[in-house]
Amino acid sequence: MKKKIKLNPAIRADGKGFLKNLAYDSVIFGFSDGQLKILLMEYHNTGLFALPGGFIQEDEDLNEAVKEGLKERTGLDDIFLEQYYAFGDRRRFDASVLKKILLANGIKPDPDHWMLGRFVTVAYYALINYKNVQPKPDVLSDSCTWYSLNELPLLILDHKEIVEKALNTLRHNLDRKVVGGNLLPQKFTMNELQKVYESILGQELRRSTFQRKMLGMKILRRHQKQFSGKAHKAPYLYSFLKR
Amino acid sequence: MKKKIKLNPAIRADGKGFLKNLAYDSVIFGFSDGQLKILLMEYHNTGLFALPGGFIQEDEDLNEAVKEGLKERTGLDDIFLEQYYAFGDRRRFDASVLKKILLANGIKPDPDHWMLGRFVTVAYYALINYKNVQPKPDVLSDSCTWYSLNELPLLILDHKEIVEKALNTLRHNLDRKVVGGNLLPQKFTMNELQKVYESILGQELRRSTFQRKMLGMKILRRHQKQFSGKAHKAPYLYSFLKR
Repeated sequence: MKKKIKLNPAIRADGKGFLKNLAYDSVIFGFSDGQLKILLMEYHNTGLFALPGGFIQEDEDLNEAVKEGLKERTGLDDIFLEQYYAFGDRRRFDASVLKKILLANGIKPDPDHWMLGRFVTVAYYALINYKNVQPKPDVLSDSCTWYSLNELPLLILDHKEIVEKALNTLRHNLDRKVVGGNLLPQKFTMNELQKVYESILGQELRRSTFQRKMLGMKILRRHQKQFSGKAHKAPYLYSFLKR
Repeated sequence: MKKKIKLNPAIRADGKGFLKNLAYDSVIFGFSDGQLKILLMEYHNTGLFALPGGFIQEDEDLNEAVKEGLKERTGLDDIFLEQYYAFGDRRRFDASVLKKILLANGIKPDPDHWMLGRFVTVAYYALINYKNVQPKPDVLSDSCTWYSLNELPLLILDHKEIVEKALNTLRHNLDRKVVGGNLLPQKFTMNELQKVYESILGQELRRSTFQRKMLGMKILRRHQKQFSGKAHKAPYLYSFLKR
């Protein structure tokens, strides 16, 4: 239960054992119902929505802390996770938000409580196969659920900006097979792949052009159809070629 | 002289006024004599070489702090500067290095001096036109000079790794015109551009292939030769097209 301490604000007011002024946030992308979604937390009794994040203990690597945090939320261990930006503007500092969260958890913080200080946050994005997530109540407790990118609630601090930059990074890397390969099941239809692209780009694509482009990249393998029942009418399934 | 405090270790032992556990380092690339070079600092009386870096004051943005630091070192204001990674492994923590530097500057730090703590560093790379740098003695004082990437001295902590990741990032972005455009004067020869590519990639390229590829990208403008003296024998000059 060592890690539980990170989610529990009832830790020492001087933050002993944690790096000061530094946090992380993760934008966890999943794909379902033809939509790109991310995981958001709602803090108890506050109505405040935020990206899953946390602090870094003095005895753990930054990347390791983020990976552990991600595992707690999703139950997944081996995930595509990439650091993309450290957000460090002064204007992201707003002690009142953290104060509200602490108060709602029964903690009345002193003005010099470490969590009321200014934080630079290192942002990561993760790509996960939506269907693989096994929500574990004790892990996803604090109301951690999926939200479509088109219907995000109001987020605390600069978390909306953090999401937007993650999406831009994803767009920038879209043609690396890693993106589709991590958001989809191992086998998928061309239509499903197109939906992933469309939801990341935020625009519809022509089916024929998309298919030609994808096949031209020579990163896909087309599988034989199974001849059972109506299977011959089913669309082809594809998977990404291993390098 | 407000900024001087950042370079001066004679600040309060508790680090008041600065973000804790957080630093920045910058890999400043320049190009001269056909070689890619970076700026390194040598700390007085220690023989320790390091990337130019610093700490962030509580009242300044992270990016702003780095920009200011860069200006101090190079005298340049409007520079291509990009954040690329936050290095946060525990193993980069080595209090003895900072202790040596403080001692060499006449400061005998207590064991709980804030500079002896663990730091996560946010790394940036900058591309500058070597010829534009006006070294100002008071700014480049602490022996801050150019070193060819092929002949780097031993660097403190994980600074070698930071340089390598910067170079990888540069390789990844090589075909964005921004790279050549910031490392070269406004007008340059095809040969000079090829040298930039070769030094970043660490390998020689075929002249004809390189030229064809560059012209095919349609990002270059070829200038008319000046008909004066032997100028007609001089190679064509190019510049990057403005978008």
